[in-house]
Amino acid sequence: MKFIDKLLNISRKNKSLLCIGLDPDLDLMPDVDILAFNKAIIDSTYDLVCAYKPNLAFYEALGNKGLTVLQETIEYVPADVPVIGDAKRGDIGNTAKAYAKALFSTFGVDAATVSPYLGCDSIEPFIIYQDKGVFILCRTSNRGALDFQDLRSNDGLPLYEKVARKAREWNIYGNIGLVVGATYPEELKGIRSICPEMPLLIPGIGAQGGDLALAVGYGVDSQGEKAIINVSRKILYASKEKDFAQAARNTAEKIRNQINSYLVSLQKAE
Amino acid sequence: MKFIDKLLNISRKNKSLLCIGLDPDLDLMPDVDILAFNKAIIDSTYDLVCAYKPNLAFYEALGNKGLTVLQETIEYVPADVPVIGDAKRGDIGNTAKAYAKALFSTFGVDAATVSPYLGCDSIEPFIIYQDKGVFILCRTSNRGALDFQDLRSNDGLPLYEKVARKAREWNIYGNIGLVVGATYPEELKGIRSICPEMPLLIPGIGAQGGDLALAVGYGVDSQGEKAIINVSRKILYASKEKDFAQAARNTAEKIRNQINSYLVSLQKAE
Repeated sequence: MKFIDKLLNISRKNKSLLCIGLDPDLDLMPDVDILAFNKAIIDSTYDLVCAYKPNLAFYEALGNKGLTVLQETIEYVPADVPVIGDAKRGDIGNTAKAYAKALFSTFGVDAATVSPYLGCDSIEPFIIYQDKGVFILCRTSNRGALDFQDLRSNDGLPLYEKVARKAREWNIYGNIGLVVGATYPEELKGIRSICPEMPLLIPGIGAQGGDLALAVGYGVDSQGEKAIINVSRKILYASKEKDFAQAARNTAEKIRNQINSYLVSLQKAE
Repeated sequence: MKFIDKLLNISRKNKSLLCIGLDPDLDLMPDVDILAFNKAIIDSTYDLVCAYKPNLAFYEALGNKGLTVLQETIEYVPADVPVIGDAKRGDIGNTAKAYAKALFSTFGVDAATVSPYLGCDSIEPFIIYQDKGVFILCRTSNRGALDFQDLRSNDGLPLYEKVARKAREWNIYGNIGLVVGATYPEELKGIRSICPEMPLLIPGIGAQGGDLALAVGYGVDSQGEKAIINVSRKILYASKEKDFAQAARNTAEKIRNQINSYLVSLQKAE
């Protein structure tokens, strides 16, 4: 099944645009081992989400052990919930091929994030996995996004818009999406208008302070879908006590419902 | 010891600007296991190089086993030869911190490559490891480099030059370098003039067809140093037979000596 269909199916079934970032941080976690933590989070939230998004950095930082945990976490996610491997890879030719293989075959994720800096031949080895989703970094949620992504070309367009336009051009298999931070709502709005059909992965809600109403309003497509709103720390670390899984569920449910109430307002406004 | 000192020490001792990319490709390798292959390559070339550069993609593609091999390979490199972890990572805040930790603490490399797309706060968690080297992608060696890196801002400067200038500005600890492909010699020349003091990591020689004489001529600093000329496949896969290590040595020695003869010509030309 194609990534986008898997995403839409679960999104409709769970009535959810919420993605939970599975980013284990030992300093913030309750006193359980990471795999047990991830499993408890998944058990308590899988009916509230449209995807899970482990960021590879947190697993790599733990060495080989961490990657075993990542692998087992990915395998533990229910088969109808897509997993987005947040790796932001970007390399050339046969190296990009090796990264795509690592993510899609070895780890078996349903989608991955990639960096655009190296251009088309760094993206191509990913998109040829036609059933997988490929989210290209477009406008990231951090302050450093301003350094290069906002640079205006001599035609007046900022770099991130150039990336959105190229992504549209490269999207011959229909499996490209974009990463756009909720912390820059106006840019999100602009990107959604350039790419009305693409799934948008939207981090920056929660700890980073992005506005949820605007992320929903500007992020969804004309059907009120295809926005994947990621929240990590605010859900994972809702409690540091034994009740962490229930606390995570409560927070996830609240955010999922908030998103849905914004969607209802949008429909009414039309 | 700071990365740059470690680099200059071994570069002078071995009279070499040659870096060997340790990129195991099962399709091109002789019939030995990867760790044995890497060890044989290191044994036969450690006195001819200024660094080794494993690209993490090739190890990740093999799963956990691959990362164990990577770890053991890094540990096997003689202590006075720096290892550059070619990972091209780029992420934000605490995620970038986790990547820096993975590379510098968990794997223990001496330097790493990073992507500039996410700006200053994606680079900072790396450069605060002040003894480590941080090579920012500037002008890559692939054809896709043209897609975004050449985009001209309204001040007339292409993106890769903006990156070089920002890198210079960010270089408060003196541990930043740049990645510049040998396949674009004019751009290499321009970048060297913007950053006369920085180490430049120069891939693209060998299989990718970059011109070695120009890479040396345009890549070195005013002392004929600080260019790290990477060759991977041409050396690693000089032979697919039992004599692969000796064949690798012969090719490495030839390239090292060629580089040095170009350096002599440069000095004479002055």
